[in-house]
Amino acid sequence: MNNNQSDIGLIGLGVMGVNLALNLESHGYQVSVHNRSRKEIDDLTNIRAKEKNIVGCADIADFINSIKKPRKVMMMVKAGKVVDNYIDKLIPHLDKGDIIIDGGNSHYSDSIRRSKSLEEKGFYFIGAGVSGGGEGALKGPSIMPGGSTSAWPEVKDIFQSISAKVENNEPCCDWIGGDGSGHFVKMVHNGIEYGDMQLICEAYQIMKDVLEMTNDEMHQVFKQWNKGDLSSYLIEITADILAFKDKDGSPLIDNILDTAEQKGTGKWTAEAALELGTPLTLIGEAVFSRFLSTIKQERVEASKLFSNSSARFKGNKTQTLNDIHDALYASKIVSYAQGYTLLSEAAKQYNWKLNYGAIAMMWRGGCIIRSAFLNKIKAAYDNNPDTKNLLLDPFFNDKIKACQEGWRRIASLALINGVPVPAMTSSLCYFDGYRSAKLPANLLQAQRDYFGTHSYERIDKPRGDYFHTEWINQ
Amino acid sequence: MNNNQSDIGLIGLGVMGVNLALNLESHGYQVSVHNRSRKEIDDLTNIRAKEKNIVGCADIADFINSIKKPRKVMMMVKAGKVVDNYIDKLIPHLDKGDIIIDGGNSHYSDSIRRSKSLEEKGFYFIGAGVSGGGEGALKGPSIMPGGSTSAWPEVKDIFQSISAKVENNEPCCDWIGGDGSGHFVKMVHNGIEYGDMQLICEAYQIMKDVLEMTNDEMHQVFKQWNKGDLSSYLIEITADILAFKDKDGSPLIDNILDTAEQKGTGKWTAEAALELGTPLTLIGEAVFSRFLSTIKQERVEASKLFSNSSARFKGNKTQTLNDIHDALYASKIVSYAQGYTLLSEAAKQYNWKLNYGAIAMMWRGGCIIRSAFLNKIKAAYDNNPDTKNLLLDPFFNDKIKACQEGWRRIASLALINGVPVPAMTSSLCYFDGYRSAKLPANLLQAQRDYFGTHSYERIDKPRGDYFHTEWINQ
Repeated sequence: MNNNQSDIGLIGLGVMGVNLALNLESHGYQVSVHNRSRKEIDDLTNIRAKEKNIVGCADIADFINSIKKPRKVMMMVKAGKVVDNYIDKLIPHLDKGDIIIDGGNSHYSDSIRRSKSLEEKGFYFIGAGVSGGGEGALKGPSIMPGGSTSAWPEVKDIFQSISAKVENNEPCCDWIGGDGSGHFVKMVHNGIEYGDMQLICEAYQIMKDVLEMTNDEMHQVFKQWNKGDLSSYLIEITADILAFKDKDGSPLIDNILDTAEQKGTGKWTAEAALELGTPLTLIGEAVFSRFLSTIKQERVEASKLFSNSSARFKGNKTQTLNDIHDALYASKIVSYAQGYTLLSEAAKQYNWKLNYGAIAMMWRGGCIIRSAFLNKIKAAYDNNPDTKNLLLDPFFNDKIKACQEGWRRIASLALINGVPVPAMTSSLCYFDGYRSAKLPANLLQAQRDYFGTHSYERIDKPRGDYFHTEWINQ
Repeated sequence: MNNNQSDIGLIGLGVMGVNLALNLESHGYQVSVHNRSRKEIDDLTNIRAKEKNIVGCADIADFINSIKKPRKVMMMVKAGKVVDNYIDKLIPHLDKGDIIIDGGNSHYSDSIRRSKSLEEKGFYFIGAGVSGGGEGALKGPSIMPGGSTSAWPEVKDIFQSISAKVENNEPCCDWIGGDGSGHFVKMVHNGIEYGDMQLICEAYQIMKDVLEMTNDEMHQVFKQWNKGDLSSYLIEITADILAFKDKDGSPLIDNILDTAEQKGTGKWTAEAALELGTPLTLIGEAVFSRFLSTIKQERVEASKLFSNSSARFKGNKTQTLNDIHDALYASKIVSYAQGYTLLSEAAKQYNWKLNYGAIAMMWRGGCIIRSAFLNKIKAAYDNNPDTKNLLLDPFFNDKIKACQEGWRRIASLALINGVPVPAMTSSLCYFDGYRSAKLPANLLQAQRDYFGTHSYERIDKPRGDYFHTEWINQ
């Protein structure tokens, strides 16, 4: 019997796991660590954590026995089969009431399944989205935990103490909701990140290809933007990137290959939207844009077949830069409005009670998408917790109205000049569709009834009354 | 022992099943029919098929014994569990070499699984997409069979004789490829149908809301279009629909509710594109547009908050109608180019050898998307079977170039006037992205390296060499 047991156990000593262990220890917690291969355990305990309160355990039984009850065992391992294998290995050693925490990038459907299965066996499960990369894990990540609600009081202090903090020392971590909700919210965060990045890329390409601006000029614009409405981590690092010089003094950005990679969480977000019947157009286009960027050689070939004969820009550059700002800001509002609609559809589908304002605050620090903007989302839900769509919130409503003309001008300018702006236009089309009392879906329903006898509803009859017309025999 | 055995057995006497049975019988085949409940069997054999060569069998053993060996048993039942249940019921009665055919709207992944499992047991499986609705099933559907290739010679004559026919009596049915390929091709067909319908809706809304045309005027335009490049079943029925008068003499189209319904196959297509990493933007937007149309009440509320202050159209109406035609035609080319790219990615992933020209010809008759246009796709693949993207084919290349200016003008006009045109703009953005030798993904890769140490490739180094920069410490 070990009299000096650890507060938490951590499995998986990759960059994230090691940094989380160090973060936990630096906040006064004793941490037991385990890893598939012994080397990483020894490396950590002998070097980086030499004088620290971190206990290495190569044997899984020793590892479990070294943790205080109810045990908190956090896995930072590769999502998928590896998580299930570890759960199977842990179960024989655990006692009822112990808590298994999955801090990896698991798909929410796996967390729903694991939550159910572990609770049936008398254990607790927490699926926690952890955002902020290696540095965030060390210095303070955003943590989005969901799962067995009864387990939250047991881990709350630990998670909130190691998480990122924003104004008034508020932790970027709060309880999300049942089973897979933590991983769902983390996934939507990642999808929104894809959208934000795509929008910045589109703004950059218009400045570069239509306004023919230099990297230094664009650096100044993004630096300026970071002081206003658009102030955010991604705008800030874009300014840095545009100023960065390669070894030979040339702008590094111009030497980087234009093929985007991805780890698949944006794709998951779009798939969830399709599954839940929610229009998530901007993130969808952002994911597809990454796909399109990967066929570089084919694009180079195609570029030779289709020349771009657009004339040089003769408009007002200052006005156009303001318009690009407004297009980016309005599109971003739509993207978050779509993301939040996805969250609320998921909440309905999976019976989660989500605190939308709190979610915005969790993304305020530690996350890639951290921004001033998120305070406005918090305010919108404080103002009206039943806000159906952020576009209906008075603040965003006013902003969209103020940005609308510039947004339309930029979308038009880009399309006329052959610059692809799928995120800016898909969000504008969503906005125009959302504010349309009448869409052309009446024609679509008529077509379906014509070719497939699918029937239609009428504007002069109650919803739910269906009609069929023999279209051909009039 | 029955000396007069049937050529084929058919399970499931819904509209599609009954009509396929009658179609088969009218082509000289004796058909055994079975249904879960006896009533449908009796209704068919006592009434519609009274004097016909259709044998009703309420008992599954009798049903199987009534069919010639190797037996061909075609299921026309609800996709999902029902199909698996019938397969389980059939197996004990079948002999090795018998052929189970699933003619329902099954997901291709189920057909891949069933094909494998039945072949392992010594049976054959065919997953056949059947298009054309109830009328098509009776008079000649498009049939897209895939699965156990060895079984194709056994059913070829039957399928090709009952299928739709086009020029030179060519059947709209040919062998697609292995396991789930038939259902995959049918699914992509449905996705393309979603795209075609959305494009027509967008053209209609521009005519109605920007050009303020009457239904009769629009009827004339679509009727005219049906004589040219856009000639197709969907354009033809749109013309009919716009002319159709309600009982009181008013245009029926104006009384139909603008909330689109769907059965989910468009969604499947978009999901497959995400899974396979293929940019399928137009169909994706078409699916999302249907979702958006369903929240009618919320749209009506939003419309009150965001007024549309667009001025009346003062441009050249004839020119604008030509531009709408060109926008629709060019967008349609992109949609098919995207759909065919999805087919070729699936072929790579699942090891199918697809005959792309033959697929276009199968869609020439019986299908909702039947059109003159499909001959051009056939010609493109005849001309070069390795066509990577239809946009690179000389015919479509020329067409896109001819349509390009009008397409850009319409996209711009719609966005400035607040008319949502997600399909027309997403396709234009795809086209502009596809023909871009350089996309802004270099910035995106720099961002990923900055915040997540994901590294990047360089334009001056070989592909596969990755670099990381310490961005903050310059």
